[in-house]
Amino acid sequence: MTLEEKIVSSINTYLDSFEKKDLDAIIDLYADDCWIEDPVGTEKKVGKDALREFYQLGIDMGVKGSLESEVRVVGNEAAFAFKIDMESGEGTFSTRPIDSMTFNEDGKITTMRAFWGPRNQGMK
Amino acid sequence: MTLEEKIVSSINTYLDSFEKKDLDAIIDLYADDCWIEDPVGTEKKVGKDALREFYQLGIDMGVKGSLESEVRVVGNEAAFAFKIDMESGEGTFSTRPIDSMTFNEDGKITTMRAFWGPRNQGMK
Repeated sequence: MTLEEKIVSSINTYLDSFEKKDLDAIIDLYADDCWIEDPVGTEKKVGKDALREFYQLGIDMGVKGSLESEVRVVGNEAAFAFKIDMESGEGTFSTRPIDSMTFNEDGKITTMRAFWGPRNQGMK
Repeated sequence: MTLEEKIVSSINTYLDSFEKKDLDAIIDLYADDCWIEDPVGTEKKVGKDALREFYQLGIDMGVKGSLESEVRVVGNEAAFAFKIDMESGEGTFSTRPIDSMTFNEDGKITTMRAFWGPRNQGMK
């Protein structure tokens, strides 16, 4: 696989893994020297232990991720618009981020920044 | 207007200005100390003179910009997925970037990075 193909595959696995509740699959997509900033402007979570804690919360909430439009890949970076749906008694609560990610030469995610604010959340 | 409102308004003006061929409107959205990286990985164009040259090319090609989905704003940053259409004898050629931007406290764009690769371009 080319790096571009690895990146697209990684992002698809990333989004699919929430519904599968496969925390290990998500963490395995990341490089050891990784950090995430979700949402942008908040304190970075550094390293796989911190990520495990963060993503466990999402999986516990039973979220489902899906792409809103095609993944953009350029060199070792990518961006993609998606939504995270969470079912509740009152209906579906959606958060609609755009993530930007950087990757190492093996196609592992080194950094992730999630762009979303209050206007990108709500009941459907 | 709040900073968030200024940012959303700026991005709408940005995309609308291509079809209007309003180069001054685009340049006026930027701060004096600005740079753009389009696409990501290429040499940065620094300052309004460099930007003027860059955007003039797009305007000369008769492109039209439109949002693909809602703008994501968080703090003084934003990201948005959109497409740039260019009509030709053979049909419409589309480029579909995701841009990330940072803004100063006046709501002027300080940096822009455009994520798009070969898989995000083509005839419709």
